[in-house]
Amino acid sequence: MARKIRLGIIGGGGDSLIGVLHRIASFINDNYTIVGAVFNPIWEENINFAKEIDVDTNRIYLDFDTFIKEEMALPKEERIEVVSVLTPNFLHFPMAKKLIDSGFHVICEKPLTTTFEEALILEAALEKSKTVFAVTYTYTGYPMVRQMREMIKNGVLGKIHKVDIQYYQGWINPIIHDKEQRTNIWRLDPEKAGISCCIGDIGTHAYNMAEYLTGMEVTSVLADLNYLYEDNALDIDGTILLRFSENVKGVVRASQIATGEENGLQVKIYGTKGGFNWEQENPNSLYVLSNDQPMQVYKPGHGYNSDLSLDGTKLPPGHPEGIFDSMANIYLGVAKAIRQENYNPGEFPTMRDGVRGMNFIEQCVASHKAGNIWKDL
Amino acid sequence: MARKIRLGIIGGGGDSLIGVLHRIASFINDNYTIVGAVFNPIWEENINFAKEIDVDTNRIYLDFDTFIKEEMALPKEERIEVVSVLTPNFLHFPMAKKLIDSGFHVICEKPLTTTFEEALILEAALEKSKTVFAVTYTYTGYPMVRQMREMIKNGVLGKIHKVDIQYYQGWINPIIHDKEQRTNIWRLDPEKAGISCCIGDIGTHAYNMAEYLTGMEVTSVLADLNYLYEDNALDIDGTILLRFSENVKGVVRASQIATGEENGLQVKIYGTKGGFNWEQENPNSLYVLSNDQPMQVYKPGHGYNSDLSLDGTKLPPGHPEGIFDSMANIYLGVAKAIRQENYNPGEFPTMRDGVRGMNFIEQCVASHKAGNIWKDL
Amino acid sequence: MARKIRLGIIGGGGDSLIGVLHRIASFINDNYTIVGAVFNPIWEENINFAKEIDVDTNRIYLDFDTFIKEEMALPKEERIEVVSVLTPNFLHFPMAKKLIDSGFHVICEKPLTTTFEEALILEAALEKSKTVFAVTYTYTGYPMVRQMREMIKNGVLGKIHKVDIQYYQGWINPIIHDKEQRTNIWRLDPEKAGISCCIGDIGTHAYNMAEYLTGMEVTSVLADLNYLYEDNALDIDGTILLRFSENVKGVVRASQIATGEENGLQVKIYGTKGGFNWEQENPNSLYVLSNDQPMQVYKPGHGYNSDLSLDGTKLPPGHPEGIFDSMANIYLGVAKAIRQENYNPGEFPTMRDGVRGMNFIEQCVASHKAGNIWKDL
Amino acid sequence: MARKIRLGIIGGGGDSLIGVLHRIASFINDNYTIVGAVFNPIWEENINFAKEIDVDTNRIYLDFDTFIKEEMALPKEERIEVVSVLTPNFLHFPMAKKLIDSGFHVICEKPLTTTFEEALILEAALEKSKTVFAVTYTYTGYPMVRQMREMIKNGVLGKIHKVDIQYYQGWINPIIHDKEQRTNIWRLDPEKAGISCCIGDIGTHAYNMAEYLTGMEVTSVLADLNYLYEDNALDIDGTILLRFSENVKGVVRASQIATGEENGLQVKIYGTKGGFNWEQENPNSLYVLSNDQPMQVYKPGHGYNSDLSLDGTKLPPGHPEGIFDSMANIYLGVAKAIRQENYNPGEFPTMRDGVRGMNFIEQCVASHKAGNIWKDL
Repeated sequence: MARKIRLGIIGGGGDSLIGVLHRIASFINDNYTIVGAVFNPIWEENINFAKEIDVDTNRIYLDFDTFIKEEMALPKEERIEVVSVLTPNFLHFPMAKKLIDSGFHVICEKPLTTTFEEALILEAALEKSKTVFAVTYTYTGYPMVRQMREMIKNGVLGKIHKVDIQYYQGWINPIIHDKEQRTNIWRLDPEKAGISCCIGDIGTHAYNMAEYLTGMEVTSVLADLNYLYEDNALDIDGTILLRFSENVKGVVRASQIATGEENGLQVKIYGTKGGFNWEQENPNSLYVLSNDQPMQVYKPGHGYNSDLSLDGTKLPPGHPEGIFDSMANIYLGVAKAIRQENYNPGEFPTMRDGVRGMNFIEQCVASHKAGNIWKDL
Repeated sequence: MARKIRLGIIGGGGDSLIGVLHRIASFINDNYTIVGAVFNPIWEENINFAKEIDVDTNRIYLDFDTFIKEEMALPKEERIEVVSVLTPNFLHFPMAKKLIDSGFHVICEKPLTTTFEEALILEAALEKSKTVFAVTYTYTGYPMVRQMREMIKNGVLGKIHKVDIQYYQGWINPIIHDKEQRTNIWRLDPEKAGISCCIGDIGTHAYNMAEYLTGMEVTSVLADLNYLYEDNALDIDGTILLRFSENVKGVVRASQIATGEENGLQVKIYGTKGGFNWEQENPNSLYVLSNDQPMQVYKPGHGYNSDLSLDGTKLPPGHPEGIFDSMANIYLGVAKAIRQENYNPGEFPTMRDGVRGMNFIEQCVASHKAGNIWKDL
Repeated sequence: MARKIRLGIIGGGGDSLIGVLHRIASFINDNYTIVGAVFNPIWEENINFAKEIDVDTNRIYLDFDTFIKEEMALPKEERIEVVSVLTPNFLHFPMAKKLIDSGFHVICEKPLTTTFEEALILEAALEKSKTVFAVTYTYTGYPMVRQMREMIKNGVLGKIHKVDIQYYQGWINPIIHDKEQRTNIWRLDPEKAGISCCIGDIGTHAYNMAEYLTGMEVTSVLADLNYLYEDNALDIDGTILLRFSENVKGVVRASQIATGEENGLQVKIYGTKGGFNWEQENPNSLYVLSNDQPMQVYKPGHGYNSDLSLDGTKLPPGHPEGIFDSMANIYLGVAKAIRQENYNPGEFPTMRDGVRGMNFIEQCVASHKAGNIWKDL
Repeated sequence: MARKIRLGIIGGGGDSLIGVLHRIASFINDNYTIVGAVFNPIWEENINFAKEIDVDTNRIYLDFDTFIKEEMALPKEERIEVVSVLTPNFLHFPMAKKLIDSGFHVICEKPLTTTFEEALILEAALEKSKTVFAVTYTYTGYPMVRQMREMIKNGVLGKIHKVDIQYYQGWINPIIHDKEQRTNIWRLDPEKAGISCCIGDIGTHAYNMAEYLTGMEVTSVLADLNYLYEDNALDIDGTILLRFSENVKGVVRASQIATGEENGLQVKIYGTKGGFNWEQENPNSLYVLSNDQPMQVYKPGHGYNSDLSLDGTKLPPGHPEGIFDSMANIYLGVAKAIRQENYNPGEFPTMRDGVRGMNFIEQCVASHKAGNIWKDL
């Protein structure tokens, strides 16, 4: 009997980048096999893609509802166990809801939903189903991100008093300054993208990273967003002041008009005993600062790392692993959870991260619109 | 006849770091000769230091008032031409005032004064005297900082829409967490340090850098400062939202509790056509970003640099110059101004920079104390 | 009908790192499906590993000879098409020989064989079989390595006149200085490891990189190897002078006693018009130098890269891909060759690279033993 | 009574870069005052330059011989104490010889002489005079270079077994490929430049660094130089194998055709316990490697540094000092020696370094010309 977990995929067909990312992540640790899917709402593309990547076409379904119906009709030992939801954002909620209610485990892309309210409904549903639910804040899977979390947990930085997370991209810059382009892109269309562009897409990653690493919760935010043009409805840049507690403060800086920046997620965290600098584009170097000792550069795969970090490294030091490996680590954690093996809560982001992320987005927009005032999360 | 400018120094004796910095800066381009001073209020230390560094002891004065009186009694062609004011902050104002009124050129350490009101009085005095007045925002003297300014001026970045300046240090971290130390250090004593510690000392550098580089003016600020302990009266960390105009925004991030950071002044500026990344601790590399071309790394001394930048480089590419050279570039600019030679306004920060800096500090504290609201500059 | 290529694997079972690397590489672009294997000479481990990773146990064979026999008995449209040879070095030759002679395509780990003579025999065999044969010099698959190759080919560097390739590791340092360890490790046992440790294992990568990138051939070598202890039979460090032609020179520097280095493969190449700096541990940044323009930093995924480079990048700029992706690019090239699609010769190293590599190793050892004299390749 | 040392300068007038470097270095620590000079063989330029930089024109001499004669005629307490020799290379020997014989202390630019034989004569002369003699291998003055030396001395790296020093520049690249330029530049004219261009100018720095840092002596060399064109008489590139003892090996890599490189002096040293990476263009970061701990990054000015390193740092951590400061540290050491104060032998390179450097150059050329064979030093 095969030990691989039966994985279903909704969305992510053809050249979809997110499809590539999840598919490879599922392969990397030999834990999953794709047994069914709705890769694409257009039947011909759906079935052709299945053939192309060699998935059994008998379990390629016409649409999501058929997927659910047919899979539920299969005996449990054949039925798909976990479903990756890679559809456009507005479909995350209805699909995740139905999957949870039907007893599937779910790996859901972020943002979890399009509103905080929907997120709370999902959370309540999961409360009942008790299935495994992961939200793919991909960057939490990097070995050195995990290492930061464990070091903070173990008190290496002392009491954290300052958190500064940056997420700077420049991709929307040429678009935003061209009237025709900015009024036609779905990312800036509230109907399709929800209430936020920049904060919803990347600010939320930065926020999640802050909480993932520190184990602390943001209690309130004050956001200053930028829309740049009057005819543009969604933020493309923002600086958000964070309060964890009265004297523990932070800032999230997110931008899609940081011209020339690629995917500049950067972490700076400081505590009474030490600090961290880490950059997503150079993910295998973690800079550990202290009051009076030389800066140290932690690298993956060395024995001095925590188990959580080492568990996410496959090769010896000096063999760079990247973003696919980071996502694969999340899939590995989910596999352990599905198999009811022991795992570290740091192995994958959960429903709770997704729910808090939605609240963060809504409160940032509310803070900005109210004139840059504090809003509680 | 010697062509060197006759320089007087107030303060900066003994092991004073600021004294070393200014003295070396004055030597570097062969423009100045130190002919008189009050290095120290204690006579013995004053005179001994003069002997140690070989300054004519006939023009070592007992105190500032004697300095003025005796120098004014000398014929103009022997009299000190320019005075470097390196005394504790609260003395900047009365000394600079008297020097300006007596017709001396002045090189004054920052912060210019202890209040915005004093700064305005100085500005008015200078209006009458028409002497040369420089405020030593040292970091503006780096060749690559100058290069950024010229490239922005020449439109290389297009229209600037985002400015992010960081100034992170960690030195106060061990002090602030020790009750005895934090209540005894002069930097945290409002009587001695004025209304701000972190913003006044380093936030103001970051703010000045933003205006120096972009040629734009900050119109309002919203500050969130951190004092960490109830018994601590002055900020030791702060994030300040900047508004240049409605859609041109920025942020200054300053901290003295960024544990393990040394002197982390970092510049990120983005415009419609490109962006800059620059770090003071690695001052000879300027990273120039654009929408779709490879990032470029500008280095000092190459022909592709602007005259303003090249003027601040003495050796061929690959021979790193540092902080002393940066200050020396400011002294060089002042020398040109004193000699009424042509110079680029970017060669040294002026009274206006000092005045605006004081306003910035006061409005940041006011914004924070009023509950993080916007304050106009 | 499935379009995936039927892949067989010899070796690489259990925790084998090379097994993980090849398996993941085969998955990444959806081109291969593992249909048969001899993962391990011990039957129980062989079959258990097959079950663990969900490979059909009917095609898990007792040993290599059975593998060949049974697969050859299958109809061609079911038979394994390509075999990855991941066994200990001394088995590469006999297995590759039999596979070639039986008409299989082969993906063979490096070093190709244990002697140059064996390599020549393989080459002759391939000449007859006309099958596809790749030697996995993994690092040639990185997008920025491919970009260097294409830029050199297109004359961006002008005529190449200097090549400096480093491969520094430190892993053997604690072993070599411990008599018991150094006399027991298989890597330093000529019976098991052949005539060279350091040059055979990593020097050969550096040499291959030099030829892969420049398109030039090394004509002679002068090697100075280090054995450190009299009781140690194999080199653990070496500097090798390269001659491409009379005035085109180079150096390969390889070490396993570069204490603390992880996997420091570094490329420096210079020509009349420009130069390259690249480091394997930071594989996504290519530094492009020129006489008088700012250094440029090329990153993967941008439109300014060559097709060969872009073909090896799956996600947008800023999403770091790593060593698995590099190997996957090689597998992708092999897939194209097997399907008789068009491909760039830079997509995978061939028999010729393997053969030249063996010659290089032998001539380096010969040069050293003869007292550091030039040996022709 | 002034405590500054009376400094004379031969050469280095006008825009001479070496003049700027030495003059600033002499100012930086308040130890020297320039009291006499022959800045230029052309009288008008000589005297004008003296006026420009405010040196007493009474002690500006017509030529070197007059300098000696007139200064020797002065009473010892007025006479110049130390002379910086900044003339073209071929004048170093006769001038240094006469200065030594006349009892002056000397600070001499490298290369010490134009032949090893001359160097030996100087060494013998110094043996008699017992004056202070420094050769300005400038880069040894960097705080982190000094830190490496002290750490090696204190056994932090264990027993050194591998030394790799690079010195790559690209400046001669556009010249060497242009027949007219390469046949006219003095650097490639054996009459003016001696027997070597690249090794004599920069290879010797790399070699000196190797010995300075490790405290070991190179016993033999095998050099492979490059001249690139038949009509070019002097090397512009070379790789030199070093032997310290049977199993302690190294390599010096020097080039002036490393197109686009600026001043790439780089140090890699490895021992049984650890290793160093250091780069002159980023002189304030020292990377300290070890077998199994995170890499450490040492920075100047911290308490964890050695006294020798701290003595060469004037400002707190994070305030970058550069090449002028490095040279100033050498001048500081010489001042201590002249005043017969205690000093660390690492504070300045001596006659011995200069002599060994000349031997190195000659043996490298000899090794190359003899067909790349070993030559003893």
